[in-house]
Amino acid sequence: MTDVNRQVRLAQRPQGMLTPEVWEITEEPLGEPSDGQVLVGVEMLSLDPAMRGWLNDVPSYVPPVGIGEVMRAGGVGRVRSSADERFSEGDWVTGVTGVQEYALLDAAALTPIDTSLAAPETYLGALGISGMTAYFGLLDIGRPEPGQTVVVSGAAGSVGSLVGQIARIRGCRSVGIAGGPEKCAWLTEELGFDAAVDYRAAELRTELKRAAPDGIDVFFDNVGGEILDLALTRLSRGARIVICGAISQYNASAAVAGPSNYLSLLVKRATMTGFVVFDYAGRYGEAAREIAGWLGDGSLVAREEVIDGGVEAFGETLLRLFRGENTGKLVLRVGAS
Amino acid sequence: MTDVNRQVRLAQRPQGMLTPEVWEITEEPLGEPSDGQVLVGVEMLSLDPAMRGWLNDVPSYVPPVGIGEVMRAGGVGRVRSSADERFSEGDWVTGVTGVQEYALLDAAALTPIDTSLAAPETYLGALGISGMTAYFGLLDIGRPEPGQTVVVSGAAGSVGSLVGQIARIRGCRSVGIAGGPEKCAWLTEELGFDAAVDYRAAELRTELKRAAPDGIDVFFDNVGGEILDLALTRLSRGARIVICGAISQYNASAAVAGPSNYLSLLVKRATMTGFVVFDYAGRYGEAAREIAGWLGDGSLVAREEVIDGGVEAFGETLLRLFRGENTGKLVLRVGAS
Repeated sequence: MTDVNRQVRLAQRPQGMLTPEVWEITEEPLGEPSDGQVLVGVEMLSLDPAMRGWLNDVPSYVPPVGIGEVMRAGGVGRVRSSADERFSEGDWVTGVTGVQEYALLDAAALTPIDTSLAAPETYLGALGISGMTAYFGLLDIGRPEPGQTVVVSGAAGSVGSLVGQIARIRGCRSVGIAGGPEKCAWLTEELGFDAAVDYRAAELRTELKRAAPDGIDVFFDNVGGEILDLALTRLSRGARIVICGAISQYNASAAVAGPSNYLSLLVKRATMTGFVVFDYAGRYGEAAREIAGWLGDGSLVAREEVIDGGVEAFGETLLRLFRGENTGKLVLRVGAS
Repeated sequence: MTDVNRQVRLAQRPQGMLTPEVWEITEEPLGEPSDGQVLVGVEMLSLDPAMRGWLNDVPSYVPPVGIGEVMRAGGVGRVRSSADERFSEGDWVTGVTGVQEYALLDAAALTPIDTSLAAPETYLGALGISGMTAYFGLLDIGRPEPGQTVVVSGAAGSVGSLVGQIARIRGCRSVGIAGGPEKCAWLTEELGFDAAVDYRAAELRTELKRAAPDGIDVFFDNVGGEILDLALTRLSRGARIVICGAISQYNASAAVAGPSNYLSLLVKRATMTGFVVFDYAGRYGEAAREIAGWLGDGSLVAREEVIDGGVEAFGETLLRLFRGENTGKLVLRVGAS
């Protein structure tokens, strides 16, 4: 235990790919919770592609992280001291802790988690925002019917790996697009995807056609760029494209590459819809219960890749997402408490 | 009257902008209707941006026009001779006649029109496919609510001019984007649009912001390219983009410019949907009755620009669409009967 809180703050806005200069490590004395507050010792942090967007000074679904502010992040941790009756020292909680060793938060902003049901890191993945994103994006926006073909890009990532599994559970043909033979093998052999396509393959177009021979009814896109454009050429009539993210474009210095084949939407009477998972906050419980059931009966596999290194390792670890190095949910262990 | 039928056939597939070499004029003897057929003397032809797409040898919502085939076109005309009890000589009809002076068609493919209710050319515009496209695209796909802002591109064209008026009739703020001050003045002064924006204006972004200060709830796009990209920056939360066409891209030799700002769909929880009006064929009567009512009480103005010149003038007249020279529905008079 220490009385110092180390933090990662935004030092300057990135141009293109993230560099170490974007971040600064700061230290400040630990605060004490006022009435209704809780001091949380952060154990693990969720690392998400969306973080890149939060660094740009443009209007979006959340305000950008300000220069000098602690970097925004979801985390799990344990209560170190509490000035609210709902929480006691040692309780496991989750919330938007930020990239720091300790977070002083309003009790109302924290949710208790039950680590006897699932490991703490699972509350950042399948039972956290990644799981909620996969669940509502696929089922509410994509609306797959049994027997239809669901194709997901970024399929070996935290959201994508869940989307494909939920599609399979719901009786769909589940196809993942991922980078490299190891990830593809993981999707089909361990997660039960019906097919996986390596986007680095020379014959990507042919491979996708083979994997989804009847066309794509739901395309869940985490990647954007050329993969979105390719998927647009394979839509079934009435297809739904779910725009969840565009990791291929987040670090671009030039303009985002728009989908050149978007007129397929017209030919195929198809829809492309964006969503923000926070809109579903009132239904997180419903999703978490169903996902927990699937985890419990083994029909859904959650994988987290937990990286040690503390807050100092945040900047470097985050880059793994953009290099496509992670499989499953990428988590940074802070482990201060 | 003559016994020769002059026709415009596709001589070669165009690359980029249409040239005279794309077409050939042919002559053949007039046919006689067999049982169940009708010989129609074509009076007027509908000229549509979608025609450009029919010339490309790619899968689409209709088969491409084949090399050597009579160019596909909707038309109105009068029955010259009939071998079907439903039609008699002199009856006015509409159908897919093709670009020719006479069309020998199955009676089942023809619809009678009442020229005492509206001029024949109106059955190619507000009471024809243009009207159906505006009606179903706006109301079924765009789903505007009273008080919302509807922005339409290509607003002085056949479909766009109707979209903006139907939006106004339905209690929306109606904003048109069109080329040049004359067209803009026509929209606001004669058609009752609340505002019009000249896309050639230097400060297009500012102009659009002024015209749609509360953001765009429904964007009905006939144009694509930079205008679609600009509209994406002004969406309201939950906005609907209706993809009706992309006239700015149809003659491009290079790849279509995809909407670089498509990730606004995510930030704004918005939808981009394509449609093909033929899917609504079973409901054309419903739309035509409502549009005829609006024409009758003066709440909707239909304008057709009828160009003389016969089938020989087809190629040159079609180019007016892509040069933005027409206001309202562009119609070619054939007038053979």
